[in-house]
This record gives sequence, C-alpha cells and structure tokens, in this order.
Amino acid sequence: MSRKIYVFDTTLRDGEQVPGAKLNLAEKLEVAQQIAKMKVDMMEVGFPSSSQGDFEAVRAISRKIGQDVWIAALGRAVEADIDCIYESIRAAENPLIHIVLGSSGVHVAKKFKKTPEQVIEMGVGAVKYASSLLPQVQYSLEDASRSEFEYLWQTIEAVVKAGATIINVPDTVGFAIPEEFGKLIYRINDRLKNLDPRVMLSVHCHNDTGLATANTLAAVKNGADKVECTINGIGERAGNTALEEVVMGISLHPAYYGGHTTVDSKKIYETSRMVSATMGLDIQVNKAITGENAFAHSSGIHQDGLLKSKDVYEIMDPQTIGAPAMEIVLTARSGRHAFMHVTKRLGFDIPEVSVAAIYQQFLTMADAKKEIYDNDVLTLLKNSGVPSSATSPELWQLLDYQLQVTGGLPVATVRLVKGEQEVVSSRSGSGVIDALYGAIMEAIGAPIELIDYRINSLSRGKGSLGKVTAQIRCDDQLFSGKAIEQDVMRASALALINAVNKMLLK
Amino acid sequence: MSRKIYVFDTTLRDGEQVPGAKLNLAEKLEVAQQIAKMKVDMMEVGFPSSSQGDFEAVRAISRKIGQDVWIAALGRAVEADIDCIYESIRAAENPLIHIVLGSSGVHVAKKFKKTPEQVIEMGVGAVKYASSLLPQVQYSLEDASRSEFEYLWQTIEAVVKAGATIINVPDTVGFAIPEEFGKLIYRINDRLKNLDPRVMLSVHCHNDTGLATANTLAAVKNGADKVECTINGIGERAGNTALEEVVMGISLHPAYYGGHTTVDSKKIYETSRMVSATMGLDIQVNKAITGENAFAHSSGIHQDGLLKSKDVYEIMDPQTIGAPAMEIVLTARSGRHAFMHVTKRLGFDIPEVSVAAIYQQFLTMADAKKEIYDNDVLTLLKNSGVPSSATSPELWQLLDYQLQVTGGLPVATVRLVKGEQEVVSSRSGSGVIDALYGAIMEAIGAPIELIDYRINSLSRGKGSLGKVTAQIRCDDQLFSGKAIEQDVMRASALALINAVNKMLLK
Repeated sequence: MSRKIYVFDTTLRDGEQVPGAKLNLAEKLEVAQQIAKMKVDMMEVGFPSSSQGDFEAVRAISRKIGQDVWIAALGRAVEADIDCIYESIRAAENPLIHIVLGSSGVHVAKKFKKTPEQVIEMGVGAVKYASSLLPQVQYSLEDASRSEFEYLWQTIEAVVKAGATIINVPDTVGFAIPEEFGKLIYRINDRLKNLDPRVMLSVHCHNDTGLATANTLAAVKNGADKVECTINGIGERAGNTALEEVVMGISLHPAYYGGHTTVDSKKIYETSRMVSATMGLDIQVNKAITGENAFAHSSGIHQDGLLKSKDVYEIMDPQTIGAPAMEIVLTARSGRHAFMHVTKRLGFDIPEVSVAAIYQQFLTMADAKKEIYDNDVLTLLKNSGVPSSATSPELWQLLDYQLQVTGGLPVATVRLVKGEQEVVSSRSGSGVIDALYGAIMEAIGAPIELIDYRINSLSRGKGSLGKVTAQIRCDDQLFSGKAIEQDVMRASALALINAVNKMLLK
Repeated sequence: MSRKIYVFDTTLRDGEQVPGAKLNLAEKLEVAQQIAKMKVDMMEVGFPSSSQGDFEAVRAISRKIGQDVWIAALGRAVEADIDCIYESIRAAENPLIHIVLGSSGVHVAKKFKKTPEQVIEMGVGAVKYASSLLPQVQYSLEDASRSEFEYLWQTIEAVVKAGATIINVPDTVGFAIPEEFGKLIYRINDRLKNLDPRVMLSVHCHNDTGLATANTLAAVKNGADKVECTINGIGERAGNTALEEVVMGISLHPAYYGGHTTVDSKKIYETSRMVSATMGLDIQVNKAITGENAFAHSSGIHQDGLLKSKDVYEIMDPQTIGAPAMEIVLTARSGRHAFMHVTKRLGFDIPEVSVAAIYQQFLTMADAKKEIYDNDVLTLLKNSGVPSSATSPELWQLLDYQLQVTGGLPVATVRLVKGEQEVVSSRSGSGVIDALYGAIMEAIGAPIELIDYRINSLSRGKGSLGKVTAQIRCDDQLFSGKAIEQDVMRASALALINAVNKMLLK
C-alpha cells in the first residue's frame, strides 16, 4: 500500500528569515490560515525565544488553527528556549517541540567550541526536558549532510532513547547530492526502524546548488517519512525545498516513490500568490509549478502542438494546482489562429476581408512591443474601425492620465471611456500608484479590491519598459490584467483596466 | 584523469523563446559576446528557418564570435531548414547543425501522424544531408525520456551510422527523475561508446518539476559528455537547466562527477545580470547561485556564525562567480555589530555615548520599513546630528522631488544636497523614470551610465511598497543601490542616489 508522506511547512519560520520578508502578527495569521487550507500535516510557525513578537505570533496561530494541523516551533537545545516553545504552542491539539543542534565537525568545533560528546549530552538533556513537557519532540541534526556518519548515528540513538519522536536530517548549507543524500537516508532509516519503528524520519533541504527538490525526493524514495519545505521555496540564501515541487513530484510519480501526500494541490496556486504578495517576494516567471510562465506556451511550434493534443507538451493540467487555464501569450511568434482567439474573447468579430490586414498590423505592433495585451488589441481594433459585436459588453479604455507630485503629495487624474460614456476622476494617495489606482477605481465605480500588483522592469539599452500585473477581486472571483509600456505609470493604469475588462467580459 | 564536460549554452535559442524575451540583432550580438566571454564550449543561437530575423542574427553571431566557440543552430529534419542553418553558420570555425525530431510515442503518433519507421527514415535522411554540408551534426531525440528504449536506440544507431556526431537526449517536458534519467543515459552511453566512441552524448533538460539540474548532473555522473543549458535557467514554461547550477555543481564535487568544465565561473554573475536585464526576465531573489540573496545572511544566528567562521554557513565564496562580496542586509533582526559596520562604511563615527540610543532608533525604523538601506541610515544619522568623519567624502541626499505628467509628457524636478551644496534640476523624459533619472544625473554631474533598474513591489494589506534596485557603471566599475518606499518614484530616486554614494565612497 502507498505510504503517506507527511508534509511539514516552514514558510513562517525558515521562509520568513528572508531579508525584508518579516510579517506582523495579522499577516502571519492570515498566511498560516491559507497554508492550513492547503492541508499540510504540520506547520512550523516561529522561533518563540528569538523575540516577543515571534512568541506572540506562534501562540496566536496555535490558538487559531491548532485544531487543524500540528503546530511546531523551533528553539536551541537550552531549557529557556524549550520553555518558550512550550508556552507558545501548548494551546494546539498537536504541539511539536523542535530542537536544533549542530552535528558536523565544523559546527561542533567552530560554532560551539565543545567536544562531540558534550554536544550529544546537550542534545539528550534538551530532549529529555522537552519530553517532560510534551509528547512530540523533533530533533534536528544541523549540517547533518556534512557530518561523520557514526557520530550522526550515535547522536540519533542517544536522542531517540531520550524521547525524540521525529529525527530531522537537514542539508543545512545545500551541499548534498541526491544519490548520496538518498544513501545517507537509507542507512539512517535502516538503523532507526530497528531501534524504534515509531520514530519518524524527516528531511530538510536547502537549495544553494539547485538540488533541494531532488535531494528531498531522493530521501522520500529511500525511506524518509516527512519532508520540510516552504511555499515557492523561499528561505534564506537560495531558499528551502519548494513545497509545490515535492508535492507534485510525488503525485506525478506515485509508483516510483511508493507514497502520497494528502496536500490539497488545488490550493497551491492561490497559496503561492498569497505568500508572494504578503512577503513581497516575487516569483520568477519560469519557477517550476508556480511561475507565471510554468504553463505558458509562446513558440509557434508549441502553440500548434498543443492545439493538436495537450499531452504533447503538457505533463500537468494547470487546474491540478488551481492555476487559471493555460494562457496563450501574444507575441510576434503567434499565429493568426492565436490572434483571432484573443479578438473573439474581447467580443470582436473581424470581417473576413479585413483579417489579413489587421493581422499584419498586429505583427508590426508585436515586433515593437514584444508582448501584446488586451489594451493593445482593443486599440488596434478600434483604430481599424472594427465594431464590437452587439452581444458583447462595452469595455473601458484609457484616454489620458495626468500626475502631479508636489511637496510629497501625489495627485492623479484619469480620463476613461466606455462606449459613449466618458469619465474623469482625480484622487490623491500615499504614493503615485495609490493615487492612480484610486482615481481609476473611482471612475469605474465597481466594487473591486486590488489583490496583487507587480512591476517587472525590462531595461533594454537606453529605454526601460515596465511590465505591470494587476490582480483584482470582485464577488470572490479573481481577474488579472497585464500591460507593458515605456511609462510604468501608464502600464500600471492599463494593467488595472485590462483586469476590469476581463471582469466585464465574464 | 578528470574528463572534460562540454557546456553548450542555448540561452539565445531555447532561452529566447520565453514570451516577450525576443531580442533584436544588436542585443543578440551583445548577449552572445558576453556568453562567449564566459568560455562556454558551444553556443546555440537561433532557429534560422523560423524567420529572416533569426537567420540574420545567427549569421551575424557566426561571423563575430565564430572563432571563439562552436556555433550551433536548430532546425527540423527537412532539407529547407538544414540549408538555412548551413548558410547562417558556415562562417564559424566550428559550425554545428542541430536537427530535432520526436522519438516518443505521443510525438510520433499525434504530432507527426507517421509510423515509427518513417520517423527514423526522416531522421536518417536529414542527418545524411546535413553531413554532406558540414562535419558536425547533432541529432536530438525530442521527448526521449518518455520514449520506448529499444526504439530510441534503433533511432540513435541509424542516425550515428548516417553521420551524426553528437546525440542529444532531451527531457523535453521535464518529466524525468534523476535516478531513472541517469540509468537511461548509462544504457545509451554503454551501447553508444561500443558503436562509435567518437560520438558525443549530450543531455538537454527542462525544469517543469524542479529537477532539471539534478537530471543533468545525474546524466554527467552516468556518462554524458555534454550538457545543454541556459543562463538563469530561462526558457519556455519552467525553463531549461540553469548553466550556473550545473557548472558550480560539478566544480563543488569534482571527485563525485569525475569531470570538470572549462567555463570561467568568475563571469557567471555578470552574465546572469546582463541576460536578465536585456531579456527583461527578473531573477528570483532566492535563485540558486545567481539570486540576489544567494549569499545574503539576515538572521542574527547566521550573521553571528559567519563572523566567527565563514565555512559554517558558506559553501561557496561569492567571488567564485564574480559576485560582489556578501552583503549584510540590515533588518530588525540585525545586531548592533552589523549596524555599526554599515555606519562605518558610510563614513560615520558614532560617539560611544550615542550608540545605544541611535541603535534603538534604527530598530524602530527597521520594524516599520522591513529593510534598511543607505539613505535610511544617512537620514537617521544626520537627524541625530552625528557628523561624518573628516576624511570621508560628502554624500548626496534627496531633499524633494516633483513630478508632472500632462498630455503624456513627464517632467521631473529634483532637489539634492551634498554637504553645503544644493542643486535643483528638471528634465523631461519618455516615461516618468526616464525623466526622474535624467534630472538626478544632471544634478549629480558625474559620467555615470544606468545599467540595470528593477522594481519589486511588495503589496501588503492596503499599502504597497516599492523596492527599487539601480545599478550604475562609472569608469568600468559597477555600483548598485537599493531603496524601499511606499512611493515607487521616491524609491527609484533614492536607489539611484544610493548607488552614486557607493561610487563616491570607493
């Protein structure tokens, strides 16, 4: 029978250590609830002894969602840290004390300046103390992948006898190689299951050489029961193992790994976007699974292959992770078929005789602009005098905008048109974007909420292009718009308007 | 003896297929020259039969740098494509014709609608024709990792006999598992070296499940002679194998892989930044090797560990890839030691009696702003009346800026101060950033050139913060500045000024 692989999310502990990604209590709670919705088994949410703020966040999360997932918190192998952990997580139904202590030569000698035996003693003492407080204790052998095997095993044996219920093997500096890490886990698991079959074996990898996912999966193949990871692979330096990659890797190859997770993969996309926006950590467009382009096809050959049969180039349906259906991005490489697909979506029926000429104009525009978005197609069609079909709703277009910043106060004015209706609206704001978006939302007058706003700048030679993505929510549905312009303010306005138009077309 | 692993860069072919990343001829040439500087062995630079532009770019690159690296171009298994390739690369000293043809059941049946035998015949015909034009011919078995092994081998045997000199095994859809892909390469290599030991075995992986690097390295371990990759792992969907990860992976574990590359790793950082800026593809901060945080440490424990001994947490010196020395990012988690380190760098000597109070102010600021940059520290110190040391240069500070956009024309005015000197300057521009940066550069009056400009937006709750990075060049030296503000315009101005101040401090 397929064995269950436990998923331990540490986005709010190891992930939050990214410079600048620190969250306040309300934000932490919101992220924790979102991650719990994804049905991970365990969640590590802080290092309570590091600050009063961390302590309070861990306690609040334990109270709020401690019935749904195991709640873990980290500390050093000292009683004060363990007391802090205990106090912060005791409200949870399944609280887990997580103790970390170095096990490699470099840690033992250079960081602690102790003998190997003294370090084991510290670990054993800490585990005994923790076990006296709570039944579940996880012991992490920091830098395990660079440790001497017999010393590693000696430590494991000692802490298991002292009461540790989970043994975690971290590749702290991201130095391991999948084949060798797999072998290490196999050796440990073999002895561990003889020592005490109830003890869970866990791994925690870092991505310094791009191998965190491979190392984690190699460990699963070789007996690991539990994987530690973060959403989008965030974390210090090159980050941790990406949860989405491990979960989907196991689910794509169930026979090979002989296991399964109980994560609800349909929540991955939403959680990934939410963590990215809340922590301010943009996701690379070609990030595996959660990147904006992960399911996008742009070359003529691939767009063509896909229209013939999806499984030629697609191994995963974007819907499996809850991502919007694959989008065909219009570029100079797009065929007429793809172009017509977008014009139809926008509610236009190009008369047969004009198709060739308008497609040519599209190609010229695509050569200059690289990527073509809805606002570009709308402008092109309106300029060519193509009428929108009678059944389709009128869409918003930007006629003009003005911006003034004087004495630190930004004021934006926009002039929008929709069919025969022209609206002018002005707003001030805390920043230029805030003012601009305030003015647009007032002009549009629909109850929309801005969920995500991102700028990717494209500096090419002298000019710099701004590519903006805006995501809005209306009636619990998400709509996202993009635009690319030399002027980032104009691109920002157009991206929001494109999102609003998508909503109108729905 | 350590065998040489050949590095084949396909940034300008497979990488350039990313939506919106298409380059013009001048940009392609520039990127090709930069990649050649890194001393890759081979470089694939286009698909000449796909467009006249691609053809001309391949020809221009062949002429310009065809003496330094092998130049390859891709085409389908048809004579017209091969003719195009030949004409475009013949000027190179070592031109390589690259033919791709599907080999998996889904490709053969659904894409080509041919029998397996007919597909082999097509391949053999194409290789024979290519070999009649040039000595070096590479044959790619598209979707090889999902192909039936005996059919794969039958194809390889036939095309080698027809004259193929390199056999390339792609994991086209990124579905492979390292252990199994390694075994596949081992089996092919075993038979191939018996068939003709001169034929080179190559691999080409995609990152759809986050395993491209692991699959490529597993192939190297199992006999692959050559690896195909792109800078930053760019490419369609989740991208290709990242060159920097494979090159550094091999160099960190020379004994395990029993091989080495001759890539000049010191050029990796510069090339990565250049490709990112030219193609407009931002690199995730926690991207392995080339991410902005790849060598950054922010937590108290790690900053402390590093100051005691670098090898506790650092497996690679950033200088190995030509990256600037590890930067300590100031956040609310930074200790007094780290804060003092930055104030000293900026030329300030805080009187002993004031240290505690100013450090407290820093912590309050860090709690609110998440990340603290040079401009923040400067403001803090000036507001606290700390004088800069007599030997240190005066630095620029932003007093105020104004911005007007009317009728599509942005005009920016800035007021800067440096010691006693106050300068006001106005400029118009093609976009708001262009105008703002023009005004600042005019005020500063130094011969600097803007190399890179990036905005990462951090949307948190209602407010949205903008984090801007600006990189400038002066006298062939690079300086980069960052700033984070609610107003992206203000953040943009401050990032540029921070970069200029770094230059003044040098």
